[in-house]
Amino acid sequence: MNKIYLSEKDMPRQWYNLAADFKNPPRLPIGLDGNPLTPDKLERIFPMNLIEQEVSTKRWIDIPQEILSILYRWRPAPLRRAVYLEEHLKTPAKIYYKDESLSPPGSHKPNTAVVQAWYNKKFGIEKLTTETGAGQWGCALSFACSIVGLECKIYMVRISFDQKPLRKSMMNIWGGQCLASPSKATSFGRKILKEQPDTPGSLGIAISEAIEDALTDSSGKTRYSLGSVLNHVMLHQTIIGLEAKKQLALIGEKTPDIVIGCAGGGSNFAGLSFPFICDKINGAKITIIPTEPTACPTLTRGPFRYDFGDTAGQTPLLAMHTLGHNFVPAPIHAGGLRYHGMAPLVSHAVTEGLLQPRSYDQVKCYQAALTWSRTEGTICAPETSHAIACAIEEAQKAKREGKEKVILFNYSGHGLMDLLGYEKFLNGELKEYSLPEEDLKKSLEAIADFPKL
Amino acid sequence: MNKIYLSEKDMPRQWYNLAADFKNPPRLPIGLDGNPLTPDKLERIFPMNLIEQEVSTKRWIDIPQEILSILYRWRPAPLRRAVYLEEHLKTPAKIYYKDESLSPPGSHKPNTAVVQAWYNKKFGIEKLTTETGAGQWGCALSFACSIVGLECKIYMVRISFDQKPLRKSMMNIWGGQCLASPSKATSFGRKILKEQPDTPGSLGIAISEAIEDALTDSSGKTRYSLGSVLNHVMLHQTIIGLEAKKQLALIGEKTPDIVIGCAGGGSNFAGLSFPFICDKINGAKITIIPTEPTACPTLTRGPFRYDFGDTAGQTPLLAMHTLGHNFVPAPIHAGGLRYHGMAPLVSHAVTEGLLQPRSYDQVKCYQAALTWSRTEGTICAPETSHAIACAIEEAQKAKREGKEKVILFNYSGHGLMDLLGYEKFLNGELKEYSLPEEDLKKSLEAIADFPKL
Repeated sequence: MNKIYLSEKDMPRQWYNLAADFKNPPRLPIGLDGNPLTPDKLERIFPMNLIEQEVSTKRWIDIPQEILSILYRWRPAPLRRAVYLEEHLKTPAKIYYKDESLSPPGSHKPNTAVVQAWYNKKFGIEKLTTETGAGQWGCALSFACSIVGLECKIYMVRISFDQKPLRKSMMNIWGGQCLASPSKATSFGRKILKEQPDTPGSLGIAISEAIEDALTDSSGKTRYSLGSVLNHVMLHQTIIGLEAKKQLALIGEKTPDIVIGCAGGGSNFAGLSFPFICDKINGAKITIIPTEPTACPTLTRGPFRYDFGDTAGQTPLLAMHTLGHNFVPAPIHAGGLRYHGMAPLVSHAVTEGLLQPRSYDQVKCYQAALTWSRTEGTICAPETSHAIACAIEEAQKAKREGKEKVILFNYSGHGLMDLLGYEKFLNGELKEYSLPEEDLKKSLEAIADFPKL
Repeated sequence: MNKIYLSEKDMPRQWYNLAADFKNPPRLPIGLDGNPLTPDKLERIFPMNLIEQEVSTKRWIDIPQEILSILYRWRPAPLRRAVYLEEHLKTPAKIYYKDESLSPPGSHKPNTAVVQAWYNKKFGIEKLTTETGAGQWGCALSFACSIVGLECKIYMVRISFDQKPLRKSMMNIWGGQCLASPSKATSFGRKILKEQPDTPGSLGIAISEAIEDALTDSSGKTRYSLGSVLNHVMLHQTIIGLEAKKQLALIGEKTPDIVIGCAGGGSNFAGLSFPFICDKINGAKITIIPTEPTACPTLTRGPFRYDFGDTAGQTPLLAMHTLGHNFVPAPIHAGGLRYHGMAPLVSHAVTEGLLQPRSYDQVKCYQAALTWSRTEGTICAPETSHAIACAIEEAQKAKREGKEKVILFNYSGHGLMDLLGYEKFLNGELKEYSLPEEDLKKSLEAIADFPKL
């Protein structure tokens, strides 16, 4: 039995808020002056109902029935066991994965996209702006806005826009408008284009453009939507881990020994892992591993500091692991992992000693992805391959140790929009790459004078 | 509840053979001389174990456990109810669909691909050749060969090869080799290229190349594999309809009033409908509708005649609805429906009065596909949109009639590899097109002297 389904009636009816359970409370966002941020400063960017979730420390937050009805399109998502990969690896480990690739846009992103769209609509908002890296988030928000009935405008990081032109078509199918970022549509975009006409772009730049777009709309009916990093995004994604727990219980499986998710801004990792971090805080023995690219090693090499969430410095300062807000990652194919920072809640969990981050080179990740396709069959997103590489590594370790470990990872999305990267890998065009130490040092200079933690 | 799952243990353990149940037996393949074909003539093309299935008139044929274990990767496939589309249409009809898009290659095609690969492997074959239109079948066979352990070489119709370059990457991921057809790799390909260097290609031409490749391999360890048309292919696909029946029974739903599938060579249509045709033969009142493009109207406008399955005339003569084996369909985006003929079993069911074929223009189909994406969420294959257009039409009719009809269609594949067609549709570049009568007449001249039925 390799597919474990949950019925709609057994779907979680509350999200889990990890902020309620840390031993030491996470640091709050501050301004450059060092003063704490008050919720009203965010009002022009986000609707108040989402800001309330952002700052909430309630452990459980109800999921409105109308949102559940939207989620039923693809949720509950199956929990699957990778029996064919296990057989191939000859491992005593049991490898489970939560299949988030079955949502219409093909990733975990709609778990929060439809929620954010719904709350914005309820608040009277008519249009959402956002950024997107690999395109997963842009597709997800476009889809969500189509379902809920909002306009949608997406700034897509240029390198991904060029590598994955069909992502734009997907967004168009759901009625969204997609521009390559930096674009000429915002003053920040024009500034960057003037300074660095050949820039591949970055998530930080695209975020700045989307925020500027929302702030400069005179109707006041436009807000910005972020696909990761923020607390309320992590919150919405916890439905993944909550479902997984129910599904493991359904088949009488023990608590996993190892929980894995790839981490760019942190949302798919948080979605799966936060409910298990809760168990860990309460004494369970679980190794919880966020995986990231060696090209963008935020958790493994970035310091824990106050930094901007975007490149232009329009966001408050967030306490997080960061490579510096000016950092432009190498154009690796896992576009969703090309972010300079990390969700404050994930960062805080690292400082609390709850997580064991690891970084993987993209060549090793594509090798893992190919092993996956030729055993399990499906084609994973390049981001997801960073989780698979780790799952394979842990399964091989379990084999060496002769232990029947339970490994759980998040299959965050399919790679059908990312075949160009596979093509290059198969042609031997991809090289191993690790961020040079001097580049990191230089990038961190930008935050040298920022308030210290 | 919009997802109806079946457990692995309830999966059908036998395929259903419609050939056993016709009132009048279907016509057998013959040679150009009019003499019936004996199985041994096929031996250089197919392995004997599949030839036995091809000519079998047994009603039920066992599915080997090893094949079930391969199918478990994505089967049983969910039966889904299109509740969001129903709501949008305000129809009293209930619209169910079998979701065949969840297989690793994204369509129903692997249902027979893994079976054919398995039987070939068992017979000692080392390599399979095939053709592909839209690329669904090429991906499916490449995937199947990867799982079973065979080499795989695919001739892809040039128009689709150009429109969907990433299909080739998919085939490569699973280790398959993909060439644009007509190619320089076969003498028939070279001949066509010389005569019509700018031809968009056709399934007929690609079939001829793949057969030539298999026949000219001196090791004798290469066979050809066909993704549609033949009886054994229809047989393997009946798992779709058999599962659907179990799933409808599971929720206490009545026999559908209307069963719909798009039809190119006939395999996804047959897969869903044959078990219901059995019911119809036994007295059930069911309207069963194969849908096809107005650009390639095989069932609605092609005569029932003996004709070649390919363009070069390497196959026996099959009794089928045909537009003539030289017919080159207009380059519509539903590449999988661009075939001059139709499965003999499907064709025979039409002549027996069991089916009511309809044709749809591609513009109407894309409109239906867009309605689908903006209600149900997912993006369907252009082929599948021909079934959706009909399901919507029937749901609207049910609304006018005020009848709570049960509609069941086959969601044969996703459209994530076909976004270029959507892009063109959204840009208003697609035109309505119906095959001109004079073109049909001219194309049929090629079979004027063939043996008559």
